[in-house]
Amino acid sequence: MPRIDGRKYNELRPFTLTPGVSSFAEGSCLIEQGLTKVYCTASVEQGVPFHRKGTGLGWVTAEYSMLPRANRERSPRDVSKLKLAGRSAEIQRLIGRALRSVVDMAAMGEATITVDCDVLQGDGGTRCASITGGFVAMALACKFAADRRWFRKNPVTDYVAALSTGLLPLDGRDQPLIDMCYEEDSHALADFNLVMTGSGAFVEVQGTGEGRPYTREELDNVVKVTAPAIYKMIDAQKAIVTI
Amino acid sequence: MPRIDGRKYNELRPFTLTPGVSSFAEGSCLIEQGLTKVYCTASVEQGVPFHRKGTGLGWVTAEYSMLPRANRERSPRDVSKLKLAGRSAEIQRLIGRALRSVVDMAAMGEATITVDCDVLQGDGGTRCASITGGFVAMALACKFAADRRWFRKNPVTDYVAALSTGLLPLDGRDQPLIDMCYEEDSHALADFNLVMTGSGAFVEVQGTGEGRPYTREELDNVVKVTAPAIYKMIDAQKAIVTI
Amino acid sequence: MPRIDGRKYNELRPFTLTPGVSSFAEGSCLIEQGLTKVYCTASVEQGVPFHRKGTGLGWVTAEYSMLPRANRERSPRDVSKLKLAGRSAEIQRLIGRALRSVVDMAAMGEATITVDCDVLQGDGGTRCASITGGFVAMALACKFAADRRWFRKNPVTDYVAALSTGLLPLDGRDQPLIDMCYEEDSHALADFNLVMTGSGAFVEVQGTGEGRPYTREELDNVVKVTAPAIYKMIDAQKAIVTI
Amino acid sequence: MPRIDGRKYNELRPFTLTPGVSSFAEGSCLIEQGLTKVYCTASVEQGVPFHRKGTGLGWVTAEYSMLPRANRERSPRDVSKLKLAGRSAEIQRLIGRALRSVVDMAAMGEATITVDCDVLQGDGGTRCASITGGFVAMALACKFAADRRWFRKNPVTDYVAALSTGLLPLDGRDQPLIDMCYEEDSHALADFNLVMTGSGAFVEVQGTGEGRPYTREELDNVVKVTAPAIYKMIDAQKAIVTI
Amino acid sequence: MPRIDGRKYNELRPFTLTPGVSSFAEGSCLIEQGLTKVYCTASVEQGVPFHRKGTGLGWVTAEYSMLPRANRERSPRDVSKLKLAGRSAEIQRLIGRALRSVVDMAAMGEATITVDCDVLQGDGGTRCASITGGFVAMALACKFAADRRWFRKNPVTDYVAALSTGLLPLDGRDQPLIDMCYEEDSHALADFNLVMTGSGAFVEVQGTGEGRPYTREELDNVVKVTAPAIYKMIDAQKAIVTI
Amino acid sequence: MPRIDGRKYNELRPFTLTPGVSSFAEGSCLIEQGLTKVYCTASVEQGVPFHRKGTGLGWVTAEYSMLPRANRERSPRDVSKLKLAGRSAEIQRLIGRALRSVVDMAAMGEATITVDCDVLQGDGGTRCASITGGFVAMALACKFAADRRWFRKNPVTDYVAALSTGLLPLDGRDQPLIDMCYEEDSHALADFNLVMTGSGAFVEVQGTGEGRPYTREELDNVVKVTAPAIYKMIDAQKAIVTI
Repeated sequence: MPRIDGRKYNELRPFTLTPGVSSFAEGSCLIEQGLTKVYCTASVEQGVPFHRKGTGLGWVTAEYSMLPRANRERSPRDVSKLKLAGRSAEIQRLIGRALRSVVDMAAMGEATITVDCDVLQGDGGTRCASITGGFVAMALACKFAADRRWFRKNPVTDYVAALSTGLLPLDGRDQPLIDMCYEEDSHALADFNLVMTGSGAFVEVQGTGEGRPYTREELDNVVKVTAPAIYKMIDAQKAIVTI
Repeated sequence: MPRIDGRKYNELRPFTLTPGVSSFAEGSCLIEQGLTKVYCTASVEQGVPFHRKGTGLGWVTAEYSMLPRANRERSPRDVSKLKLAGRSAEIQRLIGRALRSVVDMAAMGEATITVDCDVLQGDGGTRCASITGGFVAMALACKFAADRRWFRKNPVTDYVAALSTGLLPLDGRDQPLIDMCYEEDSHALADFNLVMTGSGAFVEVQGTGEGRPYTREELDNVVKVTAPAIYKMIDAQKAIVTI
Repeated sequence: MPRIDGRKYNELRPFTLTPGVSSFAEGSCLIEQGLTKVYCTASVEQGVPFHRKGTGLGWVTAEYSMLPRANRERSPRDVSKLKLAGRSAEIQRLIGRALRSVVDMAAMGEATITVDCDVLQGDGGTRCASITGGFVAMALACKFAADRRWFRKNPVTDYVAALSTGLLPLDGRDQPLIDMCYEEDSHALADFNLVMTGSGAFVEVQGTGEGRPYTREELDNVVKVTAPAIYKMIDAQKAIVTI
Repeated sequence: MPRIDGRKYNELRPFTLTPGVSSFAEGSCLIEQGLTKVYCTASVEQGVPFHRKGTGLGWVTAEYSMLPRANRERSPRDVSKLKLAGRSAEIQRLIGRALRSVVDMAAMGEATITVDCDVLQGDGGTRCASITGGFVAMALACKFAADRRWFRKNPVTDYVAALSTGLLPLDGRDQPLIDMCYEEDSHALADFNLVMTGSGAFVEVQGTGEGRPYTREELDNVVKVTAPAIYKMIDAQKAIVTI
Repeated sequence: MPRIDGRKYNELRPFTLTPGVSSFAEGSCLIEQGLTKVYCTASVEQGVPFHRKGTGLGWVTAEYSMLPRANRERSPRDVSKLKLAGRSAEIQRLIGRALRSVVDMAAMGEATITVDCDVLQGDGGTRCASITGGFVAMALACKFAADRRWFRKNPVTDYVAALSTGLLPLDGRDQPLIDMCYEEDSHALADFNLVMTGSGAFVEVQGTGEGRPYTREELDNVVKVTAPAIYKMIDAQKAIVTI
Repeated sequence: MPRIDGRKYNELRPFTLTPGVSSFAEGSCLIEQGLTKVYCTASVEQGVPFHRKGTGLGWVTAEYSMLPRANRERSPRDVSKLKLAGRSAEIQRLIGRALRSVVDMAAMGEATITVDCDVLQGDGGTRCASITGGFVAMALACKFAADRRWFRKNPVTDYVAALSTGLLPLDGRDQPLIDMCYEEDSHALADFNLVMTGSGAFVEVQGTGEGRPYTREELDNVVKVTAPAIYKMIDAQKAIVTI
């Protein structure tokens, strides 16, 4: 009894990172993971937000949005509702934290990198794909800025990538299935987002019991199964950017 | 003394229409015109806006937005300013009028097509590219809906495409230069947007004197030079959709 | 078979410009054109928007709004919807462009003129009336400011006025009818807004096929019929302000 | 030592009510009081707000706004700030209460009258002028609606008018001065708005100590001096509308 | 035939002021008046709003809000409607005026006190309770700031408290009933808010005829009955803060 | 070298749950945890959001807000910024998920419980306190509704409580410290929020590396140390509500 698209429990969907998709942004990357496609750009600007002024430190922030027809049904744009969806707010805070964890702010000086993650198409895992692809855009922008001496040195200190895993029934028991598509995600008993660095540590672990609570053993299991897949994604990042 | 990118006054930029870029939308098309790239999707939904209820007629509407880093400098998102830019409002009204002009609303029944035009990259001419590419997305969606009997018949009655032309000094006199890139656009003495149907008539002519007013002869000239280029774009549409 | 109000195809509605209607604004004008009434004020303020700072140049901008009961039916106020109607955004951009085309920004220094066009009553042609009446308000404000040496000299370089014309069936064929009232406007096959300067050139031509596309000959015809009527309106402006 | 414009303490400014200024609204009135001018329209619509549904009773509401250049300095429009000014919110609630106090809601059936008070020019006393002029617009609309049998009968039960009075130093002591202009208003020690019906009773008394608190005697005095002037305004209303 | 809760016409509800409820605010007070509970904090910050800059004077402002379930039914939060309710805007302006009337702005220097009045539970009289409790919070903050030499001296010049009174039928005639609960408030023929200082003068008198207009004698009566009750509340303030 | 307030690494702050603080809400609870105070109310209303209509299932949602002076510095209200802070959006989604995990929606029928968590004072751990206190409010409301037969039966299936724990240096090594106050929170190397049910399973685990990433062992350790403290909080809930 296989997964909906025939994959094994620990098998990633077809996965590509295409750097340099924007002619203007300092760094950019299109990430495709199954049917999910996120267009990531990293923009370097002088100056920092108010709470950083005068510290000599830089800042990294992220914005996340879905095109209105990214999904099976069309959704109205945020602007037509005059507010950012709570879900988008939550996600862009997550992306920002993940990216900041691998940047040496002192090396930037008072500059800001804004990583825009616009979901062209969403079939599950868009927040994790935004981190994995957004990292490439950011790292390219950092190299660009360091090469031109806008930054003291390249501030990137490590790789960072993310993957979502769900607890779902398979072969008669509830198992962790990595890299869920939308269909799986909507049936998961619990769903997890893990963000890891190249050095093998966690930047973020988020696990939510949707259908039922989960045990400590299940959490352990999810971590064990997901980590190797994240390393594979980091390998793909390494093929594009060196730090 | 040639144009900035070496083109002749009546020469289009490299131009491609890629249909079917979205896995979910009923119709979609990526239009690339020079460095300008617009991602167009057409979504068919049941029901019509309030002012159409009970008429038995359908509706076509368009939304236009730029990704924050579509341009040389990053712009804040509409939602962060809590309002749609006046420019976007103006443009999406233009796109909607253009597309509606070639649709037989009675053939649709009470359904709505929303054409979303999201500018991935902007180097001049994004509103016209949105019309040309948006038409392909819409026509594909109409075929999709007609094939499934959602619509009584395919409601598309003609092709529609658009091009911007500017009055600029070239070879010692002010001439109409078609398909301006951003750099040319920002120096144009007057700029024109022409929207034409496959039958050779105008749906919209807009001409604005930016640096100076323009004469009736200049308007005539612009029309004469631009029309053949629009026909070429309609030929490209014909290669993709039959009506 | 005459027009709805008995006018000839090229006959203006009764038309008056009343300058000085505001006791406080630097310039003001009430324009009445048939039942359409627009209350225009021009306010001169020190300083310019961000994008003009340090250039030594001035700026002219326009705002357009309808009183809630300007029309046959009451409409909610923009503020109650928390957004400016797309239509208003489009119109005020048009008015601003028209007025800026006849102002020498260098003569103003870093000052801003805001022309507010508030439609007390709307019976078609409000955007054009706003340009014609707004020009008078602006020109009076410029004289006021120049007399007090706020400006280096009077920055107005020419007159500017506007008129809408529609293609409508009359006497068995589709003809251009100038200065449409609301009733005619809502039945027009195509509608055109022309903005001209006192020197006979165009600042803006906008033509939209509503009921059907239009031909180059029809565009030519509209221009030919409308221009003389705009000259008449400019004559009325000349009776009030000298430049 | 007279008042700034030479009036006596209990002398009204020149005062006119012009009914029928709108061609479309069911009732309308332009009130001019000194330099203050408020354009009032009353719109009758079917239906009532949610909290009245099914009661068989009507509703009366008011909206108040200033044109941006109504005052000596230009103010930004509410919509550009995306919110209604607190002051406007306060004022329109006052106007609505005043007008509702003289309407028999049962006679209306489930219909709504919206009285729009748009200040063309403000020189003090705009909220009171909105009540006095808004009443005329409303009463004309009620007659219009009753004549056409939209209402069971004319629902207006009494006249209502309003006036502002301030405590200001005059002839060596603090005295109530009625119908203050802006200049007086901005120096008043305390300022009062009184709303009275034709039967001589109060609908609203509001008194605010601005420069200092005031005594019970001063409140008495204000009431005594203001009431006769309000009667004069009601006389002017009676010349226009009979109830 | 007694009042709904058995009180006499001039009897206050059980009433307590609890100072120091916040560990962080410079001044704070919980006021309980019957079932009405308002949590008041006063925050002292450097700087003043734009219109006060450079004057050397301070500023006092108030904000008023109800928790969503303060009342018998839950109301949506202001932020979910993207606007401040008109009622809240009106009330916070009243609170601000009342508090400013007993502060010597020159003694503050360019500092701002913001008094936040958050209604935990509302059973009538919340605006008046906000003034009475907000005064205690403000006065404590002023002492705190004066003790630390943030202010030149304690700027509070007098006490200020408020009470609402309604005209209601009791014992066969319409009488003023002080300190109405919600149930009484919703049946009052007229309702009055009085704000008085410790010196016995009025800062604000507001009286609204809800069910019918009211006479001068009734206004007199309300004032006579309410004043002694306000003095009692000021006595309670005096037990907490000395000025 | 002890913690800032002398506690042991696994010692909770003084902790009280006060049920019934609101006279109107169907359920309510004030939770105090050290200086943190959250006022929780649960409101039961008929009907469900759009996406639940016709399913026969209920819905539980949460809203979270801080009073402006809940913290050491005053923050502007959400409504004055016209948007909900991203942080609040993220938190209220977390609270809602936690509460929904212990409710049998079928037992509610088509009704909605809204749990409002308003932070009166914040000294760290407000989101977790909102879950622990919000559960009590919700459980009381469910009993109230079940007793009155609004619900088929009491839909609460388990207890749920939450606690935040941080990785901080103590006694020369980085250790998990439970129930951080604000001061500790702002220095944590990593911070974790754990939500557990009475049956000992997890509803949510969120761990964020702030100062550095963390290892799998550290995550294990945090879970081990935090769970017993959450059980203590659930014991306090059991003393108030039985399920």
